Amino acid sequence: MPKKVRIAIDAMGGDFAPINEIQGAVLALNEKIPDVNLEIILVGNEGKIRSGIQQADADVNLFEIVNASQVVTMNDEPTAALKKKKDSSMYKAIELHANGYADAVISAGNTGAMLSTSTVLLGRIKGVSRPTIGSFFPTQKAYPALVLDVGANIDSKPRFLYEFAVMGSIYIRQVLGVENPKIALINIGEEKSKGTEVVKETYKMLKDSELNFVGNLEGRDMLQGAADVFVCDGFTGNILLKFAESFPGFLKYAVKDYASKSFLNKLMVLMVAPFLKKILSGFDYEEFGGVPLLGVNGNSIIGHGKSSPKAIKSMINRAADLVNNDLNGKIHVALNPPVMSENNQLGK
Amino acid sequence: MPKKVRIAIDAMGGDFAPINEIQGAVLALNEKIPDVNLEIILVGNEGKIRSGIQQADADVNLFEIVNASQVVTMNDEPTAALKKKKDSSMYKAIELHANGYADAVISAGNTGAMLSTSTVLLGRIKGVSRPTIGSFFPTQKAYPALVLDVGANIDSKPRFLYEFAVMGSIYIRQVLGVENPKIALINIGEEKSKGTEVVKETYKMLKDSELNFVGNLEGRDMLQGAADVFVCDGFTGNILLKFAESFPGFLKYAVKDYASKSFLNKLMVLMVAPFLKKILSGFDYEEFGGVPLLGVNGNSIIGHGKSSPKAIKSMINRAADLVNNDLNGKIHVALNPPVMSENNQLGK
Repeated sequence: MPKKVRIAIDAMGGDFAPINEIQGAVLALNEKIPDVNLEIILVGNEGKIRSGIQQADADVNLFEIVNASQVVTMNDEPTAALKKKKDSSMYKAIELHANGYADAVISAGNTGAMLSTSTVLLGRIKGVSRPTIGSFFPTQKAYPALVLDVGANIDSKPRFLYEFAVMGSIYIRQVLGVENPKIALINIGEEKSKGTEVVKETYKMLKDSELNFVGNLEGRDMLQGAADVFVCDGFTGNILLKFAESFPGFLKYAVKDYASKSFLNKLMVLMVAPFLKKILSGFDYEEFGGVPLLGVNGNSIIGHGKSSPKAIKSMINRAADLVNNDLNGKIHVALNPPVMSENNQLGK
Repeated sequence: MPKKVRIAIDAMGGDFAPINEIQGAVLALNEKIPDVNLEIILVGNEGKIRSGIQQADADVNLFEIVNASQVVTMNDEPTAALKKKKDSSMYKAIELHANGYADAVISAGNTGAMLSTSTVLLGRIKGVSRPTIGSFFPTQKAYPALVLDVGANIDSKPRFLYEFAVMGSIYIRQVLGVENPKIALINIGEEKSKGTEVVKETYKMLKDSELNFVGNLEGRDMLQGAADVFVCDGFTGNILLKFAESFPGFLKYAVKDYASKSFLNKLMVLMVAPFLKKILSGFDYEEFGGVPLLGVNGNSIIGHGKSSPKAIKSMINRAADLVNNDLNGKIHVALNPPVMSENNQLGK
């Protein structure tokens, strides 16, 4: 019998809410995940959601709707939902999961607010110091690389970075099916003597761990896909992520500039535009459909504000996958090694 | 009467030494800088330099040659020249400048070694805590942006970052002719409350300074050219630089992959290859011909290991420009504000 998986969607979160959220949910319901009986709860302004469903030409009976009067905006502080917006779509969606009514929660809204609200309402997995957010970077390999942390934790201690590596490794194994993911520490050189004190200390911890640690790698190694998981502090990771995300815009600008210079140039650009677009799509969130907040004691997925219906659908599938495969249970085991009793240790 | 400017070249430094160094020097001598009487000293293995000159079909009498028996390699530690290779081409070229025989020194060799050897032999400008190395990033504007530090200083205190901003501002005014360069702090958000403690403290210092400080900017603002100078610690800057430098390779890979899929694709790629190459050239050092070690009490220019003859020529021109315009004098004034005597202060 298929397992019931109930997912709460912050229907007001994204830049194109609630319409993209609704269309994404419809796509997910139509697709049917094997062995999963998907149920969707749309959380937000009931009136807007109902007219959005009508607009999307969908059946209103496909969804459960939970009304919420407030919206956390992209400009709100990370603590906004916790302090001032407890009747927001985000807060209430997370709460439905925290109460056990929903099995997972997704949002394309304010990342900082999603992280802090999820952390407070759902708690952390035992053994996790700080929940983290990763992001996929395109690579020359068949699959992308996970970079984490990308902004959740500015002041990252070695222990935090070590935990990011453990969680990233487990996550990549699950979503990409990579048996023994290669873990790298982002650094300014490959020698173990390189980098900040925090990075040097982290190097030792990773070296001594059971992870498939390939050592320090540099900025140039990321797009080459020299590792599956690249670990760094949230300051470095956030700047790198936003820099990488600006590449397509930069190239588009250069292409437009080139096209404006002659008719021949314009023709050429028209010809190659679809190709360029395809190459650069790897710098887009869309394909990967959001990332989970790793370390949170629940299944909380955050997506890009610009998430398309397709991206929302991917987020829903990802959430169902996390529920089905008990990602958090695996993280718990990895970060809470069994303490043997004295008797066991001595083999008595 | 033209001013004599004598430049010492580490002729063994680059990946294509000494041939690119010699060809670059020939280009510079042929070009003739107005009001400058350029003299070039090639430092390195005399035999190899002589045969290089022959190979380049150049007149041996154009150059002074100073023999050096050792070479600092790219894999050497930054302290290698100082500790073990005092008869290296790099050490001796810098020494010629330190002794006052040459007015400037350039190298396409080991950046770390060039920095530490220049700092020790030439000293620091008074008021400079740490010399720094910047790098130019392409932008959507008419000119590139300077990012610094890109690896010289891993542990950057607020005072260091402030000095980088001052030196970067003066340098950009001189080389790009920007009257009042916009200075930004690279951060994970625009609010002054964002970032690490070091960044927050630096924000205050820059805000209180006379620089044209435009505030915190994010990774996405760099290629847009939202500022002329982007300041960050050497850890972040180095990772960003190497990541950015890997972008052309990533696109080239994607293009090749695309071309391999059909004959039509291949044709298309052949057509647009020159255009793509042009767009991506901004990510190359070559155009800018190296960067000076800012804060060193002398004129010491470091270029990319892969420097072409054209890049070497640009480095020589840049060096002559620094000498002529007294960049260091301006940095000295900016970082050593005149202390007024009590009488002056009171206007007596």
